[in-house]
Amino acid sequence: MFDFAVGRTNPETVPVAGLQRAARDAIANEYAELTDYHGKLGHPGLRAAMARRESEREGVDVDPDQLSLMNGSMQAVTLVAEALTQPGDTVICEEFTYSGTIGAYRALGVDMVGLPVDANGMRVDLLEAKLDELGQARKPKFIYALTTYQNPTGVNLAVDRRRQLIDIARRRDIPVVEDNCYGDVHFDGDKPPALFALSDYDKIIYLCSLSKILGPGLRLGYLYAKPDLLDVILARRHDAGGNYLAAAVVAELYKDGVWELTEALNEALKVKKNLVVDGLAEAGADVCVTSNPTGGLFVWVRFPDDVDQGKLLRLTAERNFRYAPGANFHIHGEPVPYLRLAFGHVPDDVIRAGMPVLAQCLREARTSNEALRFATLFD
Amino acid sequence: MFDFAVGRTNPETVPVAGLQRAARDAIANEYAELTDYHGKLGHPGLRAAMARRESEREGVDVDPDQLSLMNGSMQAVTLVAEALTQPGDTVICEEFTYSGTIGAYRALGVDMVGLPVDANGMRVDLLEAKLDELGQARKPKFIYALTTYQNPTGVNLAVDRRRQLIDIARRRDIPVVEDNCYGDVHFDGDKPPALFALSDYDKIIYLCSLSKILGPGLRLGYLYAKPDLLDVILARRHDAGGNYLAAAVVAELYKDGVWELTEALNEALKVKKNLVVDGLAEAGADVCVTSNPTGGLFVWVRFPDDVDQGKLLRLTAERNFRYAPGANFHIHGEPVPYLRLAFGHVPDDVIRAGMPVLAQCLREARTSNEALRFATLFD
Repeated sequence: MFDFAVGRTNPETVPVAGLQRAARDAIANEYAELTDYHGKLGHPGLRAAMARRESEREGVDVDPDQLSLMNGSMQAVTLVAEALTQPGDTVICEEFTYSGTIGAYRALGVDMVGLPVDANGMRVDLLEAKLDELGQARKPKFIYALTTYQNPTGVNLAVDRRRQLIDIARRRDIPVVEDNCYGDVHFDGDKPPALFALSDYDKIIYLCSLSKILGPGLRLGYLYAKPDLLDVILARRHDAGGNYLAAAVVAELYKDGVWELTEALNEALKVKKNLVVDGLAEAGADVCVTSNPTGGLFVWVRFPDDVDQGKLLRLTAERNFRYAPGANFHIHGEPVPYLRLAFGHVPDDVIRAGMPVLAQCLREARTSNEALRFATLFD
Repeated sequence: MFDFAVGRTNPETVPVAGLQRAARDAIANEYAELTDYHGKLGHPGLRAAMARRESEREGVDVDPDQLSLMNGSMQAVTLVAEALTQPGDTVICEEFTYSGTIGAYRALGVDMVGLPVDANGMRVDLLEAKLDELGQARKPKFIYALTTYQNPTGVNLAVDRRRQLIDIARRRDIPVVEDNCYGDVHFDGDKPPALFALSDYDKIIYLCSLSKILGPGLRLGYLYAKPDLLDVILARRHDAGGNYLAAAVVAELYKDGVWELTEALNEALKVKKNLVVDGLAEAGADVCVTSNPTGGLFVWVRFPDDVDQGKLLRLTAERNFRYAPGANFHIHGEPVPYLRLAFGHVPDDVIRAGMPVLAQCLREARTSNEALRFATLFD
């Protein structure tokens, strides 16, 4: 089975012994706390560890008391919309964005208005015109942006665009939700700065996660915001708080920081990412171009417009090759000529064997023999 | 500190070694699953264990695939209202009910309409008249009932009332949400049957929890419903699923069933319950009557109408005695002459010392010297 459908972490590098030791010690030290509720912020030790994570990455102070642990960043994505929107309200986001966000926001009745994405991320240069077009009646309740290692495209929002985004949002008094859930799955180059590190704008809502650097089964994410806005958002939280056991175990695991473990895991992920990118460059240069992300769990693949997508799904299914169609990530579900490969959990040899399979399926699903008309994802 | 405010389990009886072993084995066996998502139902092993728990208690088959693990039953309480109501919609519940439910439903704009509670639970005999009074325009979207060891009153809904409740709900086509989160904190007598064990009515939504028999810090509860209704409710769930680590640990802990451990914990809780009931009977018979629940984590205390509740709060605070005022559990926040004592986490000797303190505060907070005008909670 060539399973590239869902964004998952690497089962080969789970720190099994470390988690076992952490669980033993956390249960020994904090068993009494398991019999209690811990409010809407959650485990103090994990909040401190996550504040330290953010502070060390971003070079600014982060107050653990402005950080609320969530059941994965997905709870935070949903909660922000629950707290800040009513059905019919508008939200600005990238035209291509996380399928989970699209599903949640659609179900909540949010009217998603997209901005195109290019190699430098969201086209922030188009934002003001879009806001003018929407007018006061449809003024967005917030701007949702996957700023770094964007899902699905893999691009980073350029620093000048980050500054421009904050500047416009502040002038127009619109909250910005920065979803940085892939932020520490980093392979190459500089880490792009988080918005909160660039500005003291008090309506930046920052979401992050441990799902991508440790495992989604831990369901540990967080939301970080200035006190007034944090209060508004947490007033809509009615789940009696997050999972204390999981938080205690991971706080113990990370008691000396997140970086050593994270970097070791990223090494293995970078190998997988390169196997996808190089594999498709070698086996499929005639039928696709790919992203080459500097982080994250996905490669975004553009194929010719003449590919019959129904046929592609059938052909790949016959050969046990699974991927996520581009339409899943388009805010209006349009059948765009892209697909997403999630490589994090796929063994190296399966990636090696899989790329020629995908290339051949793409070839067979074409309805013409024309040469590629594009050289990059965004031509 | 005499801390009787919040419903918590007993830190003295947490199965520390059992949890440590379970964590070690769960991480060893299921580390790869931690790198994955597990859908809206959640960990198969814990669902099987919880289906077995329900089936063994209730004597009917329970399908684990109709059971969705939740982040505590509180997530389920909230989710049901999110899925089945719009702001302004009506829900029927007991006039006294769980403060967390009241807070969540109020925040969601639910119009809670109460039925009185007596020694046999919700006054189901008044339900039809209430429904007629509400009419079609305010027809309730569901009936929410804490059927067993009701929080805060401690009463059980009598079996004939359970049957009557189902009968009326079925005839009127109204879903019934049975919140049985205290169901296995059992001290004496028969366990009252769950509604789903009495009827095949397809709009019974059953909520249960491990927070009360193991610990709220585990955030493990579940929702059990027939497939059509389950689908409707889970369509509103957007948190990428429950906590797999906590579920795996507890599934391992309960691999041979829940009863042995539960009964051991209940032994200790029953001692505490009796210390509260007997302690107030001895020290405070002139100023209060109490419930004597056959299960659950609370004793409900009725005091004379002439108690100055502000003064009572001040006096108890001065003596480091904390309790939950009755108003917290009244759906409209009325300052009723009741208070709730949560005894689960209070050491036995603190309970012994605390009851005379409470009795004395009640005495001092009275504004008259009249004899008690009531002999029971519900006169």
